[in-house]
Amino acid sequence: MTLRIIATGGTFDKHYDELAGKLTFGASHLPAVLNRARLTLPVELEVRPLMDSLDMTDVDRQQILQSCQQAPEKAIVIIHGTDTMRETAEVLGAAKLDKVVVFTGAMIPYEIANSDALFNLGFAAGVAQLLAPGVYVAMNGQVFAWDNVQKNRSAGVFVTN
Amino acid sequence: MTLRIIATGGTFDKHYDELAGKLTFGASHLPAVLNRARLTLPVELEVRPLMDSLDMTDVDRQQILQSCQQAPEKAIVIIHGTDTMRETAEVLGAAKLDKVVVFTGAMIPYEIANSDALFNLGFAAGVAQLLAPGVYVAMNGQVFAWDNVQKNRSAGVFVTN
Amino acid sequence: MTLRIIATGGTFDKHYDELAGKLTFGASHLPAVLNRARLTLPVELEVRPLMDSLDMTDVDRQQILQSCQQAPEKAIVIIHGTDTMRETAEVLGAAKLDKVVVFTGAMIPYEIANSDALFNLGFAAGVAQLLAPGVYVAMNGQVFAWDNVQKNRSAGVFVTN
Amino acid sequence: MTLRIIATGGTFDKHYDELAGKLTFGASHLPAVLNRARLTLPVELEVRPLMDSLDMTDVDRQQILQSCQQAPEKAIVIIHGTDTMRETAEVLGAAKLDKVVVFTGAMIPYEIANSDALFNLGFAAGVAQLLAPGVYVAMNGQVFAWDNVQKNRSAGVFVTN
Repeated sequence: MTLRIIATGGTFDKHYDELAGKLTFGASHLPAVLNRARLTLPVELEVRPLMDSLDMTDVDRQQILQSCQQAPEKAIVIIHGTDTMRETAEVLGAAKLDKVVVFTGAMIPYEIANSDALFNLGFAAGVAQLLAPGVYVAMNGQVFAWDNVQKNRSAGVFVTN
Repeated sequence: MTLRIIATGGTFDKHYDELAGKLTFGASHLPAVLNRARLTLPVELEVRPLMDSLDMTDVDRQQILQSCQQAPEKAIVIIHGTDTMRETAEVLGAAKLDKVVVFTGAMIPYEIANSDALFNLGFAAGVAQLLAPGVYVAMNGQVFAWDNVQKNRSAGVFVTN
Repeated sequence: MTLRIIATGGTFDKHYDELAGKLTFGASHLPAVLNRARLTLPVELEVRPLMDSLDMTDVDRQQILQSCQQAPEKAIVIIHGTDTMRETAEVLGAAKLDKVVVFTGAMIPYEIANSDALFNLGFAAGVAQLLAPGVYVAMNGQVFAWDNVQKNRSAGVFVTN
Repeated sequence: MTLRIIATGGTFDKHYDELAGKLTFGASHLPAVLNRARLTLPVELEVRPLMDSLDMTDVDRQQILQSCQQAPEKAIVIIHGTDTMRETAEVLGAAKLDKVVVFTGAMIPYEIANSDALFNLGFAAGVAQLLAPGVYVAMNGQVFAWDNVQKNRSAGVFVTN
């Protein structure tokens, strides 16, 4: 089995721009992250334009859907901002792909102390290999169905509807 | 579902003792690691005496088996040194528990730069919730059955027999 | 000799607020930083209200001046945002204190990967013990007089006028 | 002014070898460390064979002395293991060079969590620019003369004789 990982940005992949003095996007951290994970699992990394998920449009979501449709892999992890992870998951869920698609992300960027990014990616990479075809959100150590998940923004965690 | 995590030491949990000038064991990093993972999944952490897995005896392995037998949880992750992970997995595999037991560890300690520990724990915590009852080793982004796994020490990765 | 360290915020001390999804200020990192530095040098830490130096007012600068005037220590390090470090240094320089006052800060927050914060604090703590009384900016491995320094914002470094 | 930095190894520069499962020496971290420090100060880095200072011989110390004698720079920082830092400082002190030579090191390796390495290097790089010619040890936020310093091994700090 080969796992496809699609990077779309989100908090996971934010980078501190020291000249601008703010968090933005640069080169994806994913190549370094995957190297660090010491994988022997074959992985195909697809880095899409990195963005804050609040800036994601319907066009962006359709392109993510196309990436999943065209991918030869049966298991896909999508790294995505948490704020609209559910919305993108709905677009993919409605498409009824015969694949496993697992969304994950992070509450603290990979490059900031105490980040949950690496744990979440490991978690998603594991469950993506075992779940039945469908679209899921994997956060906080739990797997949620795409149509029964929401982000509780005041607590910063994902919960069922 | 509640996940039990049993810490037994290994490279994952090693700590640099600056007075002795070497890697040894202090307090487990697991409480901090689990906090960082931002889990809503209920977890029961059991910290056993932390040791290098090359120092692990038959008595130690029997005690780990007893921990698994007596645990009320049906899904268990055991953090273990990689050098004899297979040997301990064999003891548990032979016991034919009606539980999921997933071994994981790390090639680089949690507190050292570029560690795979957090990824591996996330991976193990994910697959432990989905696998059929049995004993497994989860390393390098792959799941291995307890009776078909070995560590390739020159490459630093786990492979099938 | 005792060194006073006055924390006023700035990039050095910024903290990622995962619920708001942005860099802000929480508790100062300085107590942890100083512990990490393994000092036997006596240090008096004064944590003032932490702020972005672009938000610093004349009143804030007068209060920092008062802190320096009232401090029993003859050597003071002030951790400050880089954007108006020069302006605050001018207020203290004009006051002609019979003390060594060394401003420092960071281009990347202490809690973000590849931060210069710890290096800069060590540098400032060293030169503050050896310089003649006066007000200085210590950044990029160099010491600048308060009246001959400016931040080159496009390069992200301090230079003479 | 140009600062010469001579890397000789020691705890500061140790690297975890994941195949051997122990701390050893690989490529020096110094190029990355200096980049991180965002220096505009001109620096000449000299990486000598990296070693544990307990393994350092008289020949090694004579070669370090020669490096200092032949260097065109008037200010030199030597990164050295703490266990025999005093012994090497004595060799250089007895040579009565007309230069500033500042020894520093770390109690926790640069690549391990909570390391003092970056603070110490910043501290040494600062005082090396201001001290009178002579040989010094800069550790724990303090500067010690080469002939009045010793490591208190049970406390892990440097003190006067």
